[in-house]
Amino acid sequence: MSRYFTPTLAELEPYTPGEQPQDQQYVKLNTNESPYPPSPAVAAAITKTECENLRLYSDPACKALRETAAECFGLEPDEVMAGNGSDENLFFALRAFCDESHPLACADVTYGCYEVWCGLLHIPLHIIPLEEDFSIDPAKYYGLGETIVIANPNAPTGLALTRDQIEGILQANPDNVVIVDEAYVDFGAESCVPLIHKYDNLLVTQTFSKSRQLAGARLGLSLGSRGLIADLNRVRFSLNPYNINRLTLKAGQAALEDEAYFNDTRSRIIATRAQTAKELAARGFTMTDSRSNFLFARTDRMEGGALYRALKAKGILVRHFDRPRISDYLRVTIGTPEQMAALTAALDEILKED
Amino acid sequence: MSRYFTPTLAELEPYTPGEQPQDQQYVKLNTNESPYPPSPAVAAAITKTECENLRLYSDPACKALRETAAECFGLEPDEVMAGNGSDENLFFALRAFCDESHPLACADVTYGCYEVWCGLLHIPLHIIPLEEDFSIDPAKYYGLGETIVIANPNAPTGLALTRDQIEGILQANPDNVVIVDEAYVDFGAESCVPLIHKYDNLLVTQTFSKSRQLAGARLGLSLGSRGLIADLNRVRFSLNPYNINRLTLKAGQAALEDEAYFNDTRSRIIATRAQTAKELAARGFTMTDSRSNFLFARTDRMEGGALYRALKAKGILVRHFDRPRISDYLRVTIGTPEQMAALTAALDEILKED
Repeated sequence: MSRYFTPTLAELEPYTPGEQPQDQQYVKLNTNESPYPPSPAVAAAITKTECENLRLYSDPACKALRETAAECFGLEPDEVMAGNGSDENLFFALRAFCDESHPLACADVTYGCYEVWCGLLHIPLHIIPLEEDFSIDPAKYYGLGETIVIANPNAPTGLALTRDQIEGILQANPDNVVIVDEAYVDFGAESCVPLIHKYDNLLVTQTFSKSRQLAGARLGLSLGSRGLIADLNRVRFSLNPYNINRLTLKAGQAALEDEAYFNDTRSRIIATRAQTAKELAARGFTMTDSRSNFLFARTDRMEGGALYRALKAKGILVRHFDRPRISDYLRVTIGTPEQMAALTAALDEILKED
Repeated sequence: MSRYFTPTLAELEPYTPGEQPQDQQYVKLNTNESPYPPSPAVAAAITKTECENLRLYSDPACKALRETAAECFGLEPDEVMAGNGSDENLFFALRAFCDESHPLACADVTYGCYEVWCGLLHIPLHIIPLEEDFSIDPAKYYGLGETIVIANPNAPTGLALTRDQIEGILQANPDNVVIVDEAYVDFGAESCVPLIHKYDNLLVTQTFSKSRQLAGARLGLSLGSRGLIADLNRVRFSLNPYNINRLTLKAGQAALEDEAYFNDTRSRIIATRAQTAKELAARGFTMTDSRSNFLFARTDRMEGGALYRALKAKGILVRHFDRPRISDYLRVTIGTPEQMAALTAALDEILKED
C-alpha cells in the first residue's frame, strides 16, 4: 500500500484468481472454462464491420441483448441487466442491497469474492457454515433479516439445492433480497429463474463464462423483478454506464440464440463429468455430487496441496484452495475426454510414485 | 427505488450518458466518438482464433497490453494498469485515494461522473468554481490537503492547463494524489505522463475511446508510480479481476502499435476543429479555445436547449447540458469535414428560420 491509500481499506484482502498462464502449455483444468469454443455464431457475429464500429460507444441500455435474453429466459427485458461478468453484477447487487448496517449472509465455503466485496464495501458478513458433508441446510437461512447470497450449485463444492429448497428460503425472507448465483446451473441443477415472477426479492445471476463458452468476453446477466433490476441499473449508471463492450454484446446475443450448441456442449460436459467421476472413484478418490462443470475431489493417498503441485509438474493445472475445511480437496474443471484421460494418466503416475 | 435498496444511497443521482440512438440515423456529434474507424490493425487482430479463444478467461494482469503501453509512454509495465474505460479507472482511483474523511476536489464545470462517484462512495466533494472564462486557476488547487481530479483538457469546456501549471499543483500537494484525466489530451494539450517519474502522487488516466477510436471496446489506462498502480490493482482485484475482455486487450494493443494512424487521425480532427471553429465564428458563435475533439460553443441568437432540439429535428445530435453556467452552450464533437458541413448547413437553416 502506498501512503496515499485509504486507511479504511487497509485490511482489504483482494481475490486471487486462478492461474492464467499465458503460454497455454498446460492442460488447463483450473478455472472452470469450457473446453469447447463458443458457438460458431459468435465468431460469425464479430464481423469486420462490427470491429470498425468499435469507434462508437456501446448501447448503455444493452437493449438487443436484453431482448434476446428475456425471450430465452421467459422474462421481460426490464427484468434483465447485463454486467461485465457475474463479478460486476454481484458487486452491483451487494452495493444496492447491503450496507454497513445491512449484512450479507453466505456460506463459509463458497465463492471467495463475496467476502472480498464485503471488505471493499464495508458490509458486515454473516458466515453460515456448511454441514459436515458440505451441503447447505436451507433452514439456517430462514428469517435472517439479512441479504443472502447462495451460489447454486455452490463453488467449489459443486453441490446444489433444489428449486423448492430455495423457494423455502425466499418465503422465509420476504423483506430481504435473496441472490442466487447460478454460474454453474446449466450443468445439472435447477434454475430459480421460473420463480422470478413469484418473488420480487429474488435476484438470479447467470454468466456466459461457463456453459456459453465466453469467459474471455466478460458477460453476465442479472435476472429479477423490475424493481430490483432498476435498483441495479441505478448503481451501474453511477459507476460505469458503458460497462459492456460492443463485441461482447454481439457475442452474447449469438451465444444465446444458438440453443442447440448450448445444449450439446453442456450435455458433453455432463457426460465427461460422469465418466471422470467413475475414473477418480476407481482410484480411491471421494467426491461431492457435483452439478457443475468441475469435480471436487480428495484422496487419502495424498494431501491436496502436494497433489496440486505434482499435477502441475506434469503439465496439468487444477485448483487447490489452501483454506479451512477444503485444503485436502482439488477442484478439477471438466475438460474434453482427452484432457480428462491426461489427468487420470498423470494421477496414476503420481500415486504410483507416491 | 425498490424497498430493498440501501437507504445510504437514496440521494444518489446516476450519470446520464449522451443519447446512443441504435438506429444510427443521426449525424452523431454528441458523445465525442471518433468519426474514423479504428486502425485496420484492430480488425486484423480480432481473428477467428481469437474469437474461439473467448472460451478462456482474459489475462487478469493484462501483461501484453501493459508492456506495449509502457513502451509507448516511456514507462515500466508496473506503472500501467488497464481498466474497463476511464470510468472504471477513475472509480478505482476514487475508491483507493478518497473516503468519507478524505474529500475529492474538482471543478464545478467538469466531467459529471466525478460527482456521481463521490455520491456512490460517500466521498465529500470540494467543488472549486472555474473562473469567469471557464479557465482553471491552478493556485486554487494549491495545498488543499485533498485528492484532486482535473480533466485536462477539461470537459465540456475543452480548455487545457499547461504541463507546467499542473506541475505547480503537484508540487503544492505532495501528500495527496493528483489525478489528471487526459481523455482528450491527444487533440492538442500537453500530457503529464512525462512527470510520472518525478512525482509519486501523480496519476494520469487516458482512454482509447477518443483518439484511438475504440469507444465501443471499453478500454482505458491508469498511468502512475508503482505505488499508486499497486493500490489501484488492490481495488481492481477486490472488485473484478478479469475486468477487460480478451478481444479488447488485442484491440488496444493493435491500436497502440499503429502510431502513424493515431497521428494521422488526430491531426485530421485538429484540422477539422480549426475549420469548424472558423465556420461557427463566422455565424456569430463564441467558443472556448478547445484542445479536445469537440467545440464548446454558444450564440446569442438562440438558447442552448432550443438550438440542441432544432439540430436534433434536422438529424444532427449534439450535447446540451442543462446545468448552471453552461446551459447556453452546446458541446459539438468534431466529426468528418462532411459531417461538420452538415452541421453548419443545418445551423444556417435554423438561424435563418429563427
